[in-house]
Amino acid sequence: MSFRIAVDAMGSDAAPAPEVQGTIQAAREWPELRFVLLGDETRIRAEAEKAGGLPESVEVRHTTQVITADEEPTRAVRSKKDASLTVAARMVKQGEADALLSAGSTGALVVVGTLGIGRMKGIDRPALGTIMPTVKQPVFMLDVGATPDARPEWLVQFALMGDIYAREILGLSRPRVALLSNGTEAEKGNALVKATYPLLQKLESIHFTGNIEARDVPFGEADVVVADGFPGNVLLKTYEGVAMALFKAMKEALTASPLTTVGAALARPGLKKMAKRFDYTEYGGALLLGLKAPVVKCHGSSNAHAIKSGIRVMKLALEGRVTDRLAEAIARLAAADKPKEEGDSPA
Amino acid sequence: MSFRIAVDAMGSDAAPAPEVQGTIQAAREWPELRFVLLGDETRIRAEAEKAGGLPESVEVRHTTQVITADEEPTRAVRSKKDASLTVAARMVKQGEADALLSAGSTGALVVVGTLGIGRMKGIDRPALGTIMPTVKQPVFMLDVGATPDARPEWLVQFALMGDIYAREILGLSRPRVALLSNGTEAEKGNALVKATYPLLQKLESIHFTGNIEARDVPFGEADVVVADGFPGNVLLKTYEGVAMALFKAMKEALTASPLTTVGAALARPGLKKMAKRFDYTEYGGALLLGLKAPVVKCHGSSNAHAIKSGIRVMKLALEGRVTDRLAEAIARLAAADKPKEEGDSPA
Repeated sequence: MSFRIAVDAMGSDAAPAPEVQGTIQAAREWPELRFVLLGDETRIRAEAEKAGGLPESVEVRHTTQVITADEEPTRAVRSKKDASLTVAARMVKQGEADALLSAGSTGALVVVGTLGIGRMKGIDRPALGTIMPTVKQPVFMLDVGATPDARPEWLVQFALMGDIYAREILGLSRPRVALLSNGTEAEKGNALVKATYPLLQKLESIHFTGNIEARDVPFGEADVVVADGFPGNVLLKTYEGVAMALFKAMKEALTASPLTTVGAALARPGLKKMAKRFDYTEYGGALLLGLKAPVVKCHGSSNAHAIKSGIRVMKLALEGRVTDRLAEAIARLAAADKPKEEGDSPA
Repeated sequence: MSFRIAVDAMGSDAAPAPEVQGTIQAAREWPELRFVLLGDETRIRAEAEKAGGLPESVEVRHTTQVITADEEPTRAVRSKKDASLTVAARMVKQGEADALLSAGSTGALVVVGTLGIGRMKGIDRPALGTIMPTVKQPVFMLDVGATPDARPEWLVQFALMGDIYAREILGLSRPRVALLSNGTEAEKGNALVKATYPLLQKLESIHFTGNIEARDVPFGEADVVVADGFPGNVLLKTYEGVAMALFKAMKEALTASPLTTVGAALARPGLKKMAKRFDYTEYGGALLLGLKAPVVKCHGSSNAHAIKSGIRVMKLALEGRVTDRLAEAIARLAAADKPKEEGDSPA
């Protein structure tokens, strides 16, 4: 069967250009996929013309409203029935589409995903998971911002979801699942981490390797890193910020003198290779896990390439049946001895 | 008067070499300071010989025990009465020393600082603050790990302490104090951040600039960043880890081919300049604020230069009368309308 992806064309900072161009690039590379671009039809078709026209596998559905980042998510989703994002979610809910992609606000996407598409049975809260580059293999980090003030049993669910993702999408047979903490020792952490650690130890279905310090994440010391949505978001954004800042500082330093400029010119291939290795547009999509259908969140500053990368993540999630696998794993856990909630830390 | 600094010589990973060498370097550069090196006298004197002997301003006090990172801090501090760290704290308590420096475990330092030296009146919990490099001026970040599960009123105290530090040590007349969150908008954040925001807005004595995202910290968008000890620690360690990882990746990329190697050689001055800009040993010391005397925590992996940098931080704190200024500011706040604790989030 061919999967159909609903793309919110109005979410990114430069919408709809990146969404339209990225979708067209993806449609050309993966003709087996079908797409629906939702948003202002006139602007979408104008962008499509610039990109050489819409492939047959891409439809356009006109919507009249847009949800912006500064709106209170729940109110915005409830009130804007004809927003590109809400209509896209409705298509998924009604089976007109198999998955949803948006570069709009995370908050609105979490609300639309929870209310519009619905949570998977056995999952209390969704988690936003993203691939991050390291000096070794990439690491899958969740939650990076969907659910702050998580509870221990939610983090256990995040760990299960991360494990399945790493198996299905990263193709790892026995992913090392670690818990983000302020020290590697078992007794280190805040109240949430201390309460979660023993629950993860009890989980036989995953390979829990204990606590991991943020310092070790860029060195690829784990395959899956589980965290509450607040520190997880801090880690991801520090990661992005420091990388951007260092590249900026490097550029300045290398163009400081004629000699270093010549050197930089000669070294460019090496520097470019490194920059590409840490290029976020390569990992454009974050997956909102725990919903009844795959939902991909792209960076607000996404360019066409980042949108296409998000669609690749979506393609892998659909082909890997991540949602079904997840539901099965959760069901198995529910059947088995479910982690107790004692030692629960207040949200 | 001349300040006397108690240096725990047994804390760092390579103790006592970095502590002894760093203290000797500092004693030579700042003859107005006096030092007491606490630890295994034989090993300390052996290291001192290698470093050309002890200056007159440096004493040695022999201690027989050492607190290690894997010990439960409170138990270790209570049981090891003759540990270098506990004896050092006792010297400060009894007025034999004005300040304490250690590269040992943060947990033990927090306990020894709280129990051995004592909290400042009006401060509920100490905060570990550190200077971090950015592409612009450095930023002062607290808490980076002393107090996880903080409460809103504690973060308010951290903000006050950070503001004083930035004025006295960084010499800023009106430091921009920001609250670490997962979005810049006022309504963004976890329960703790949402409850803290309005309390900081009420504080007239500081220039509160609102929420800051981790992504903007390396770009110097604030002078003081206030956070709970858990996400604060995550930010600091991600900062360190990504910088280390990128330098490693850069080295690999630049030595990948003969051409890039030549280029790298020519570009070396520029690259070195940048590396130095992000070199943590330049900012070796984190200050444990909120105690009755200045306490500096150095990185466990500190070399002699990092210990000396920690002593510089200590020197500035002592000369800037940071502890007294802090006590005065807290007293003023107590006198004025103290922030209410409503909207308090559970620890």
